[in-house]
Amino acid sequence: MITDERKKNAVRRLQAIEGQARGLQKMIQENRGCVDILTQISSTQEALKKVGQIIMRNYLEICATDSIRSNNQDEIYDELMDVIYKFAK
Amino acid sequence: MITDERKKNAVRRLQAIEGQARGLQKMIQENRGCVDILTQISSTQEALKKVGQIIMRNYLEICATDSIRSNNQDEIYDELMDVIYKFAK
Amino acid sequence: MITDERKKNAVRRLQAIEGQARGLQKMIQENRGCVDILTQISSTQEALKKVGQIIMRNYLEICATDSIRSNNQDEIYDELMDVIYKFAK
Amino acid sequence: MITDERKKNAVRRLQAIEGQARGLQKMIQENRGCVDILTQISSTQEALKKVGQIIMRNYLEICATDSIRSNNQDEIYDELMDVIYKFAK
Repeated sequence: MITDERKKNAVRRLQAIEGQARGLQKMIQENRGCVDILTQISSTQEALKKVGQIIMRNYLEICATDSIRSNNQDEIYDELMDVIYKFAK
Repeated sequence: MITDERKKNAVRRLQAIEGQARGLQKMIQENRGCVDILTQISSTQEALKKVGQIIMRNYLEICATDSIRSNNQDEIYDELMDVIYKFAK
Repeated sequence: MITDERKKNAVRRLQAIEGQARGLQKMIQENRGCVDILTQISSTQEALKKVGQIIMRNYLEICATDSIRSNNQDEIYDELMDVIYKFAK
Repeated sequence: MITDERKKNAVRRLQAIEGQARGLQKMIQENRGCVDILTQISSTQEALKKVGQIIMRNYLEICATDSIRSNNQDEIYDELMDVIYKFAK
């Protein structure tokens, strides 16, 4: 479960990302400079990364914490390492 | 200037990214698992990276090539290094 | 505390990294091709990343687990998020 | 060919990286904290990235420039994109 506050925060950010994706289409159709477009893509990637961090924090506080408290078998840390190295970049 | 084929390709991908951003909002509101959501965020980031690569290639073939052909002063390579290390990841 | 097996594993890898750093110096002095040198740098970075993963896993299994089990105050997850996003890439 | 100044600069940095790899072995054997060790690994990775940037700049100024000036066939940009997305991160 994701907390209500995090849900609202993540959804609001994803709506802004939709807007950025539309804005990028306009920039491309209007022949804006490549470096400007790359800058805007990079800012959209940063925005997505922030959403990922909200979900990652929820994952750590809730899912990973439950698993770690109930036991500490290898598979928990296998999953944790997998999630972290796949998504935290 | 971005070639017409690249414009079409990039715009089509950005429309799909809009759809992914909307789908993510739904996933979050429906309490889908954190790892599923992180996986979908990661796939959206990959999709944005592809758009970035289309623009980067256009930048290299057109803008950077013009500059490199007309002369090779330091500032061209300063810009190129800056663009590459900022956006090619 | 790092487990003995991890210590041995990490130290052995770091000795290999020393060797790669020396090999790179030779490649550069012998005027090897830039792409070959970049490939070797990239392989050295991967080797360092592996060492980082050994230490990260130890951190998660031992330090983070202790903190998470004793309580779940915000600062633990602040640190965890900080460590993960700084070092897991 | 790598310019003499770049050779010296890169070799000096690689010698420092050898030292960092040795220092890390000592940190691990002395049971230093995981976060301290991860910080030092990260600083070694940054140092390697700097060496990579020296070689990348040489690649762009010399190899890529020669190719771009002599013609602009697709394979040049295929290689350039490949080199950039593989090594510039």
